[in-house]
Amino acid sequence: MAKPRKTPRPKAETPKGFRDYFGAEVTERAEMLETIAGVYRRYGFEALESPAVETLEALGKYLPDVDRPHAGVFAWAEDEEEGKGDWLALRYDLTAPLARVYAQHRQELPTPYRRYAMGPVWRNEKPGPGRYRQFYQCDADTVGAGSVAADAEICAMLADTLEAVGIPRGDYVVRVNNRKVLNGVLEVMGLADEEQRAAVLRTIDKFDKVGEAGVRELLGKGRLDASGAYIDGVGLSPEQADPVVAFLTSRGETAEATLANLAAAVGESAVGAEGVDELHQIAELLEAQGYGPDRIVIDPSVVRGLGYYTGPVYEAELTFEILDDKGRKRQFGSVAGGGRYDDLVKRFTGQAVPATGVSIGVDRLLAALRDKGRIGQGAAAGPVVVTVMDRDRMADYLSMASELRAAGVRAEVYLGNPKNFGNQMKYADRRGAPVAVIEGEDERARGVVQLKDLILGAQIAESATLEEWKERPSQVEVPRGDLVAKVREMLSAHGLGPAE
Amino acid sequence: MAKPRKTPRPKAETPKGFRDYFGAEVTERAEMLETIAGVYRRYGFEALESPAVETLEALGKYLPDVDRPHAGVFAWAEDEEEGKGDWLALRYDLTAPLARVYAQHRQELPTPYRRYAMGPVWRNEKPGPGRYRQFYQCDADTVGAGSVAADAEICAMLADTLEAVGIPRGDYVVRVNNRKVLNGVLEVMGLADEEQRAAVLRTIDKFDKVGEAGVRELLGKGRLDASGAYIDGVGLSPEQADPVVAFLTSRGETAEATLANLAAAVGESAVGAEGVDELHQIAELLEAQGYGPDRIVIDPSVVRGLGYYTGPVYEAELTFEILDDKGRKRQFGSVAGGGRYDDLVKRFTGQAVPATGVSIGVDRLLAALRDKGRIGQGAAAGPVVVTVMDRDRMADYLSMASELRAAGVRAEVYLGNPKNFGNQMKYADRRGAPVAVIEGEDERARGVVQLKDLILGAQIAESATLEEWKERPSQVEVPRGDLVAKVREMLSAHGLGPAE
Repeated sequence: MAKPRKTPRPKAETPKGFRDYFGAEVTERAEMLETIAGVYRRYGFEALESPAVETLEALGKYLPDVDRPHAGVFAWAEDEEEGKGDWLALRYDLTAPLARVYAQHRQELPTPYRRYAMGPVWRNEKPGPGRYRQFYQCDADTVGAGSVAADAEICAMLADTLEAVGIPRGDYVVRVNNRKVLNGVLEVMGLADEEQRAAVLRTIDKFDKVGEAGVRELLGKGRLDASGAYIDGVGLSPEQADPVVAFLTSRGETAEATLANLAAAVGESAVGAEGVDELHQIAELLEAQGYGPDRIVIDPSVVRGLGYYTGPVYEAELTFEILDDKGRKRQFGSVAGGGRYDDLVKRFTGQAVPATGVSIGVDRLLAALRDKGRIGQGAAAGPVVVTVMDRDRMADYLSMASELRAAGVRAEVYLGNPKNFGNQMKYADRRGAPVAVIEGEDERARGVVQLKDLILGAQIAESATLEEWKERPSQVEVPRGDLVAKVREMLSAHGLGPAE
Repeated sequence: MAKPRKTPRPKAETPKGFRDYFGAEVTERAEMLETIAGVYRRYGFEALESPAVETLEALGKYLPDVDRPHAGVFAWAEDEEEGKGDWLALRYDLTAPLARVYAQHRQELPTPYRRYAMGPVWRNEKPGPGRYRQFYQCDADTVGAGSVAADAEICAMLADTLEAVGIPRGDYVVRVNNRKVLNGVLEVMGLADEEQRAAVLRTIDKFDKVGEAGVRELLGKGRLDASGAYIDGVGLSPEQADPVVAFLTSRGETAEATLANLAAAVGESAVGAEGVDELHQIAELLEAQGYGPDRIVIDPSVVRGLGYYTGPVYEAELTFEILDDKGRKRQFGSVAGGGRYDDLVKRFTGQAVPATGVSIGVDRLLAALRDKGRIGQGAAAGPVVVTVMDRDRMADYLSMASELRAAGVRAEVYLGNPKNFGNQMKYADRRGAPVAVIEGEDERARGVVQLKDLILGAQIAESATLEEWKERPSQVEVPRGDLVAKVREMLSAHGLGPAE
C-alpha cells in the first residue's frame, strides 16, 4: 500500500474571539443563573429554551440586495449549494427568538406571556479585549401586557434579583425613564424633520459619556472629541437645545420633584404628558410594594436604549466603586437594562403586541461579585486527593475516596503514574486539594493513614516561624477508621463544608 | 415620500429539525444536569465549557477534496468571501472539543485531567420523529490516565449518577466489555486482512439487533433482512465464526465464569489476555468499593462502540419495562455509553494520550423518569394568580403577589385586559394556577379576599356529587391579613410546597 501523504496537524486553538471556561468559571455562572431563575419563577415567569439556530429570515438580519447576509451574525445557507434552501444563523440575542416563538405558538401560550431565557448568543464582530463572539444573556420579558404594571413588575424583579445574587441594598439602583417623555420634548421643540429627530436621539445616547456641556455642543455646532476628531453638530440654536437639556437634567430630590420638572419640560404635548403619567404610575406601584428610591428611582438621565424602546426604559447600576485598569476609582456601572418595545411580533403577524423586558449582563455581574469577594471562595476548593503508594492496592485507595464521597466530601484517587511521589503532590497542588491522604506499606501494617493539610502547609511555608511550624503540624496520623471524620474536621477548620 | 415596497412577512417557524422547549421541559432538564454535575464534582471532575463554535480543522471533519465540508456538521467560511479564512462549525459532540482543549491547555491543566461538560451539540442530519438537529450531551472524561482504575471509576460514577437522578438500584445495570478481548478473538481466528476485520467489527455491532443467529448468517453467507434486502456476508466458514459467537455469548452466572469463558475464547493471544486481565481488574476494583453485579456486570454482549473504542467499553441500561408505541412491553434500554479511546489528542500533538469517558443521553433519561412518573409533578405547578377586579387598585394586587412571593410562593398579577373576568379565569387555568385570589370592591370594603382552589375546583367539576360539592367548597373567604397563611395551607393540602 502506498504511504498516505501526511496531512498537517490541525492547530489546537479556539476560533478567534471564542474562549474556554474552566471549573469555577462555569459553576459560579451556573449557580448565579439558577438563583436568577428562582426569582424569575417566583414572579410567575416560565422558562423558554429556543434553539441556537434560527432562520435568518426570522432573525430579521437578511438584506435582500446582497448574496451573503451582512456582518454581525454567523450565517450559512442550509443546502450544500448556496442559494438553495433557507439561510440559517446563530441567534445574536434572545429577543428576536422570543418574537418568533411568540408568533409561532401564540395560540397555545397564555397572554400575557411571561418568559425567561438564559443562554449563549453569538455575534460575528471583531473581538477585542474582554469582548467575545459568544457570551451569555439572561432575559425576562412580558409579552402581551400593555399596562405599565408590567414594567413596574420587571423593575421590582430586577431589584430582587440583584439582592438574591449577593448585591446588598444600597450597592445598586434601578433607574427608570420613559421614551414618551422624550417624544413629548421633541414635539414641543417643533422638530418635525425625521432626520433631525434621529440626530437628536443619537446625541442623547451620548449624554452618559459627554455630559451636559458635551450634549449642548453636539446639539449645536459640533464638538472636538477626545481623539481630536471633529463631530458635526445637529445645528440647533442654544434655545432650541434647552428643552432637551432640561429633560436630561430634570431629576429632583424626590420622585414628585422629578415628575414636576418633566411635566414642565413636555409642556402641552399629549404624548409627553402620557409618558410623565406612566412614570408617575410606575413610581406609585413600586412605592406601594415597598420599593422606595433607595432601590428604584425615576431618573431622566438614563438614556441607554432610548432610541430603541417605545415606552418606559430601565437600567440597573452598581453604585459601589472599583479600581479601573489604571488604579483609578470609578463606579462599577450598568449590569442590566431593558424597556418597552411594542412592535416585537408585528413583523410576523402584522398585529402590534406590547412587550417589555430586561436583559442582565451575567458576566459583568459575575465580575462585580468576584471584585467584591462575594464569590470565588469555597466553590474553587479542589477535591481531597488520595495518593497511590502501592499500585497493587488501588482498590483500597478507591474505597477511601468512595467513603469520603459518601460523606459528601469531594475526593479522588491520583490516577497518573504513581512512581514519583513528588509528582503526586504537585498534582494535588495544581488541583487545589485541601488535604492529601497517604497510606504506604508501613501505615497499612499499623492500620493508620497520614493526612496532609495542604492549605495549612501552604500558609506555614509562606509565613510561619519554626515554633509555629512545630505547634501546628500540617500532617497528622489517624487510625484508618477515623479517615472520614478527621478529613471533615480538617476541612471545616478551613471553612470548607461538604460538597454541595 | 414614496411608499416603500412591502417586504413579505417572515415565517414564524423554527428551522427544520429544531424545536423550542417550554417551562418544565427546561427546568426539569436543568435540575437533572445540576444533580449529575453534583455527582461528577464529588468524584473530582471539573466543569469545562468550550464554545459552540470550533474551527472545522479542529473538529476533524474537513475533507480536503471538496469545497464545502461534507454533511453532518453545520459549517461556514469565516470570511464573507468564501475560501478566505478558516471554516468554522458547530460542535457535533463534546469529545472533539475536549481533544482540542486538552491539546491547547495541557501545560496548565492537571494530568490526569478529569472534566465534565454539558450542553447542546448540533448535527446537520435529516431530522426524524423525536430526532432533532440540536440536542443535549452530558459527558465525563478522564484524560491522561492509562490505568483501568479510571474506567472502573467512571462505571461507579455512572451507577451513582443514575441513582442520584432517581433510578433505583435494580432498575438499571452498567455493563462492561473490552475491545482488546475482541482483538484477541480476531487474532486467534487468524484474520489478518484489514478489510475482513473491519467487516467482522461492523457485523458485531449488529448483534444487539439481529441476535446470535443473525450474526452467524452475517459472518457467513449473508442475510435477508426484515425489509427484504439481502445483506452480503463476511464469508467466513461456520467454524471460523465460532470464536466471535463464543465471545459475544460468553457471559456466565458470575464474573469469574464470564472471565473464564473469555480467557478460553482468546486462547494464546497476548492482547486478548491483556483485555481479559483488564476486565478482571475492573471487576475487582468495583467489587472492593461495593459495586456488585446488581449494579455493574462484565458482559461481552455489549457491542455498541466496540469498533470505535480501544479498550474497556461500558453502557448503562434501564432494565424496567415500558410500553412502546404499539402498546408492547419492552425494556427501556440504553441511556449512557462510553469507553477508552487512546488516540484522542494525537491528531494535534503527535503524542498518544490515554483517555476514557462516558456520555449520558440526558433527554432519554428524562423520558424514562417521566415515564415512571418520577418527575413532572410539582415542578409543573403554575403560580398563584391574583386577579384584577378594579384596574385602579393595581398597587394593592401587586402587593398581594409581592407578599406571597416573600413567603416563597410563586405568584403573579393578571396583567392582561381585566375587563372580562372569565378571561382571567381562563388565563389562570392555562397557567396551571393552583389558586386564584379575588378582591373586588365589596371584599375590600369588608377587609377580606376570596381564594379559589382551582385544583379542587377541577376535581369537583370532574367527579363530585352535589353533596360533596357543598361539603368541600372550592372557594373560601378569609381576612386580607390571612391571605398568605391560607394560600400556603391550600397549597400544602395539594402537596405543593413553597417555590424552590
